[in-house]
Amino acid sequence: MLDLIAPLVVPNTTKIVLLSLDGLGGLPRPETGRSELETARLPNLTKVASEGACGLLRHVAPGITPGSGPGHLGLFGYDPQRFLVGRGVLEALGIEFALRGGDVAARGNFCTVDGAGLITDRRAGRIPTELCVRLVDRLRAIRLPDVDVHVEPVKEHRFVLVLRGAGLSGRLSETDPQATAKPPLPVKALESGATKTAELVNRFIAEARKLLVGEPKANMILLRGFDLLPDLPRFPDLYQLRAAAIAAYPMYRGLAKVVGMDVLKTGATFTDEIATLREHRDAYDFFFVHYKDTDKAGEDGDFDAKVAALERFDAALPGITALAPDVLVVTGDHATPSILAAHGWQPVPVLVRSAYSGADPVTAFTERACAAGTLGLLPAHHLMPIVMANALRLTKFGA
Amino acid sequence: MLDLIAPLVVPNTTKIVLLSLDGLGGLPRPETGRSELETARLPNLTKVASEGACGLLRHVAPGITPGSGPGHLGLFGYDPQRFLVGRGVLEALGIEFALRGGDVAARGNFCTVDGAGLITDRRAGRIPTELCVRLVDRLRAIRLPDVDVHVEPVKEHRFVLVLRGAGLSGRLSETDPQATAKPPLPVKALESGATKTAELVNRFIAEARKLLVGEPKANMILLRGFDLLPDLPRFPDLYQLRAAAIAAYPMYRGLAKVVGMDVLKTGATFTDEIATLREHRDAYDFFFVHYKDTDKAGEDGDFDAKVAALERFDAALPGITALAPDVLVVTGDHATPSILAAHGWQPVPVLVRSAYSGADPVTAFTERACAAGTLGLLPAHHLMPIVMANALRLTKFGA
Repeated sequence: MLDLIAPLVVPNTTKIVLLSLDGLGGLPRPETGRSELETARLPNLTKVASEGACGLLRHVAPGITPGSGPGHLGLFGYDPQRFLVGRGVLEALGIEFALRGGDVAARGNFCTVDGAGLITDRRAGRIPTELCVRLVDRLRAIRLPDVDVHVEPVKEHRFVLVLRGAGLSGRLSETDPQATAKPPLPVKALESGATKTAELVNRFIAEARKLLVGEPKANMILLRGFDLLPDLPRFPDLYQLRAAAIAAYPMYRGLAKVVGMDVLKTGATFTDEIATLREHRDAYDFFFVHYKDTDKAGEDGDFDAKVAALERFDAALPGITALAPDVLVVTGDHATPSILAAHGWQPVPVLVRSAYSGADPVTAFTERACAAGTLGLLPAHHLMPIVMANALRLTKFGA
Repeated sequence: MLDLIAPLVVPNTTKIVLLSLDGLGGLPRPETGRSELETARLPNLTKVASEGACGLLRHVAPGITPGSGPGHLGLFGYDPQRFLVGRGVLEALGIEFALRGGDVAARGNFCTVDGAGLITDRRAGRIPTELCVRLVDRLRAIRLPDVDVHVEPVKEHRFVLVLRGAGLSGRLSETDPQATAKPPLPVKALESGATKTAELVNRFIAEARKLLVGEPKANMILLRGFDLLPDLPRFPDLYQLRAAAIAAYPMYRGLAKVVGMDVLKTGATFTDEIATLREHRDAYDFFFVHYKDTDKAGEDGDFDAKVAALERFDAALPGITALAPDVLVVTGDHATPSILAAHGWQPVPVLVRSAYSGADPVTAFTERACAAGTLGLLPAHHLMPIVMANALRLTKFGA
């Protein structure tokens, strides 16, 4: 898809706003037979859905539940099956570490081992974050051949390790045996190309062991979730869009940064996010705006809270439509049905409104109604080409 | 798809029932403008369709009419374009021969040749089956280097030849010249890797000739439909499901066996099949239940008989829903429109009902109504991931 559209991109002055409601899609509550979207009063969403073209997005593949990484990469136009984002990378993005393509990231834990090297506490008694910061600083002294070593504190016993250099692999086994009274496991290469990376990580662990030996609790480390950040084509270059991300949560800011968007400073609320959008309206062509509350309520299994989160979003929507973007997109990164209390595999409603989107028979922004929309059921990474077309930023294919 | 979902499979205790109505899909009768599904009274199917998510399955590709092999492999989650099942293999499965991946099977005919070796009867006067059994027993004396030779009688002049060994190919030309007064053709390799197999088969034919020389009618053999059974990943391993097949017809039992399902002993009617399902409910996680009558009526071009077959199925459905499977799937392996009196290329209705399937606007289980369902129009081999997700047997993709 990227190869297809890249040569067709043409410049324009049109503005695009992509609103991502995290965990947007839901399921009917058995008592009423109506989903969160079908229960909420959403006059503003209903209006834009009636004015635009609707459909359903599938982020990875039928039946596959997307994590937040793949869910958003799909919205940005990257096939999530081709550009994999795993746990270590998300962990690093969650602290807004500026990851680059080819970096290998891992989640680290400080742990306690006894004189025989056996684990007595996998979380080192959850040491205070201040101690974590000091110990991480000590680990920063570790040097490895041919790679840059980055160690970043997270919270309590948790930290992130990032190796940066050529030819690294994320296909490594974990060192946490997931039990006490066992020694930490050595890292093993899970593919032939990972041997060098495994050696480097084992060397890091050995050095860390030496540097931590006198600590009463945090005298060893465990590493898991090794993951390589793929080389992603830069979003602003690919689409020739000055692109900005507005997201209160670090992980989503991190995901946007990874694809090369500018991440704007904003406040903790959606109202803050809209103020940021208004403020920067002229400086960018594309805005990715993230709304977290829908996912939080869904993950909590709180149907009413998700309905309320949708209604709050709807109440705020006129603040965005008033800016009159040429293309307005409303969708989500995955479903989080309240009755599932987790991410779900269900397709997610999407609407695209522009002067050229056409209106379709859909007059409500719900899972059921959008199934009959003219956008159809489409892979999430096919959305950006449609958005670009609506922004008159794609020329025709072939003569 | 298999590579994508295999690492995501997690165990659970949920039960899945997949009902395959052979040749389910139909077309409107010109007189009424209504298809078989639109004509039949189907209160129970209508109810589950209203409660679940609906869509349309395409088994191979647009415009392509599936045979029964590809049609069912698709339902089991195997891309029928990648895992080919041809005539020789289906012939062997039709007599429930326990084929293994890598086996080469061919359809055999006894025939009559004159003193000059020219064919005088391509079917050896349709010798009685008892004689076929005796002659096949004689051919079982044939030994070939490095492969096991299996010869099995079918009916009248027909038998099945199976070669089992390493490195065989099914890309062989047929020996039947499709005319009398011509000699049987030698087998030729149709790809470079098939030379050894061609030599083995030609040696088998030469030995058979010698063993049959004194027979008055069946004094020679013809072989066609050479076909290799691909190495299919085992269904129970792939999905971590204890899987059982309930089918009255041998070919469908054979197809299920090929993918590693347990094939349960059952009676000749659908009522028998449901009794078998009830009896084994606790011992398995997944049941494939096959209903043949719809296809038979469609193949006969008997619209009313197909309507009646659908209504009989509908009347029996409560016997299955009463078992309360966590995921109920109703679909078919291909269309057999009565007005076509043959398999058709038309997409086939599908419904998936579970606590998490969501309900869509579809309130009738027909070709037209299912087109507006939330499952959309999907390749048949994408159905199993959706089924697994609804059974809460897949974890999420990416973090």
